[in-house]
Amino acid sequence: MDPRVREHAEIIAEHSTGIESGDDVVIRMPKEAEDLAVALHEVCGDRGANPVYLNYSKRADRAFKRAADGFAEPDHVRALYEETDVFVIARGGPNVTEDADVDPETNAAYNRAMEDVKRERLSKTWCLTQFPTSGHAQLAGMSTAAYEDFVWDAVSLDWDAQRERQAELVEILDDADEVRIRSGDGTDVTMSIAGNTALNDDGEANLPGGEVFTAPVRGSVEGEVYFDLPLYRYGREIEGVRLRFEDGTVVSHGAERNEDLLTGILDTDEGSRYLGELGIGMNRRIDRFTYNMLFDEKMGDTVHMAVGSAYPETVGDDNERNESAEHVDMIVDMSEDSVVEVDGEVVQRDGTFVFEDGF
Amino acid sequence: MDPRVREHAEIIAEHSTGIESGDDVVIRMPKEAEDLAVALHEVCGDRGANPVYLNYSKRADRAFKRAADGFAEPDHVRALYEETDVFVIARGGPNVTEDADVDPETNAAYNRAMEDVKRERLSKTWCLTQFPTSGHAQLAGMSTAAYEDFVWDAVSLDWDAQRERQAELVEILDDADEVRIRSGDGTDVTMSIAGNTALNDDGEANLPGGEVFTAPVRGSVEGEVYFDLPLYRYGREIEGVRLRFEDGTVVSHGAERNEDLLTGILDTDEGSRYLGELGIGMNRRIDRFTYNMLFDEKMGDTVHMAVGSAYPETVGDDNERNESAEHVDMIVDMSEDSVVEVDGEVVQRDGTFVFEDGF
Repeated sequence: MDPRVREHAEIIAEHSTGIESGDDVVIRMPKEAEDLAVALHEVCGDRGANPVYLNYSKRADRAFKRAADGFAEPDHVRALYEETDVFVIARGGPNVTEDADVDPETNAAYNRAMEDVKRERLSKTWCLTQFPTSGHAQLAGMSTAAYEDFVWDAVSLDWDAQRERQAELVEILDDADEVRIRSGDGTDVTMSIAGNTALNDDGEANLPGGEVFTAPVRGSVEGEVYFDLPLYRYGREIEGVRLRFEDGTVVSHGAERNEDLLTGILDTDEGSRYLGELGIGMNRRIDRFTYNMLFDEKMGDTVHMAVGSAYPETVGDDNERNESAEHVDMIVDMSEDSVVEVDGEVVQRDGTFVFEDGF
Repeated sequence: MDPRVREHAEIIAEHSTGIESGDDVVIRMPKEAEDLAVALHEVCGDRGANPVYLNYSKRADRAFKRAADGFAEPDHVRALYEETDVFVIARGGPNVTEDADVDPETNAAYNRAMEDVKRERLSKTWCLTQFPTSGHAQLAGMSTAAYEDFVWDAVSLDWDAQRERQAELVEILDDADEVRIRSGDGTDVTMSIAGNTALNDDGEANLPGGEVFTAPVRGSVEGEVYFDLPLYRYGREIEGVRLRFEDGTVVSHGAERNEDLLTGILDTDEGSRYLGELGIGMNRRIDRFTYNMLFDEKMGDTVHMAVGSAYPETVGDDNERNESAEHVDMIVDMSEDSVVEVDGEVVQRDGTFVFEDGF
């Protein structure tokens, strides 16, 4: 086994989730990531935790969704997660478009049925990570070997140092009322974050981490956003997304490719037309776009916004949390002709922060 | 996908388990059996059932068991099975000796910790089946392609016709008091089955099926058994097992190979020294030993006995059920110099039943 796999498992157990004796752990991974699952089982044994191993198979999910007439919440899966302390999930696989022929309404109906299960799962300590496999390497236009280097370099960052650097941005956002983001001709959007909490993502719930994120105040988002980066959703690429917000909700939308899929996402429920997250990427070890949200959204010269559910920890007690079965991140490239303003002050210009060299 | 995989999934859903709308289904398979898992997900979708997909990985189990200092019952796994209606598990994989270096005491301790989980699982509708992969093909001394034919031929038997033929033996055993089994020099054992129930295995809990089985009355087994066929347990081969019974319990034992593993099984708990099952194989499509209990015990000229837990459905209301964390089947070849007597009448000689041609 590649020694970096064991290191990956150790980082998940020690840094990301803090697996302890007696913890009930769910490990959900595609079969191509079996090495990481094996290493995690060993780590669970070392720490006195109890693992159960779920197969994350897009082939199986696709077959089920296409055959079903409708979906109900599975009691057994809900019961599993109710008793779970730590949930570790890895992406990977030979083909990122494996579920490209499931129609958007079917996916939306499935997500609605699974909403309580998802909420239960996210209420536990969890970590989403990546196993470097051929499908995501191909998506990034990289050899599998080079992609392995890319993933494991990003995962094995010095997370303590990263947290300290990110704390400078957290401090700025914590007292802030209004954020305005401008980029090129397509993006000029304003939102309130007053009363909400900015979190320092140092590689816990997401591995790799490397962003600062918060929730927009529900109803406060105004303006237009053009998302430069495509996103893969259910194995299909949605490209050139434009969203126009009024009173916090998406009042018009468009996409240059697979707009029907975007429409399906926005039509999932009431909350899927509101922003649930504003995130600012700060991980400079992620030095290229790989068309994989887990990495792209952490890049140093990006911001991302997610339609759908807001993370409870980011929403202040006096503010309403946006709830939805969806949470779909989309990225704006801030490397050129771009500005982030907080309460009228420029805090980032063309990807460089006010507290960084070269600002 | 091989069309026989879809047929296999249909037989599991329709004949073996009767999956219905609203059923919560656990599908546990090694990654090499993903095709069967995919087909089962499709069948679950067709029928309105809710699948969850567990990875049955001996590599992961081995890593966990070797690293752990001790074992506790995992609450999340118990909760999962409490809410489960149907449990489907397939064996398979590239190496049947994948867990050969886990020591017997560790396996016994693990099984004790999992005893309630196992009992919960077996209280549901369940099906154990085989996916034809290279490891079991090698064990059988067959090419993988020939082994695929062997497995799928046995799985796709006419189960209605098989059930009718087996009913003749069930009728004999249902009213019987005493069974005596003699084979060669090594085996002469007597047991009572009075008050217990003989079941007709037509491919439900085991696929392939093809046996009639019951429980010996606890405490009634007397005599010696030499088991001709080796058994694989935790990836190691136990060969030439001899057991001597007095008052139903194993008072001495030996094995020509890996006796320590046999000792570990017998020392698991009090019930692991009692017989929990007597089975008589009747599936003539299984035409060779493949050193795989799921198949070997169904062969027409074999009987098998299991130390450990008795199936509740086989134990009469007035009899005590033997309970144990173990259930380990062992086979006696009855093809030569062998007789099964029921209440003093010969019902099988050299593998041929009293109701068959050639008796």
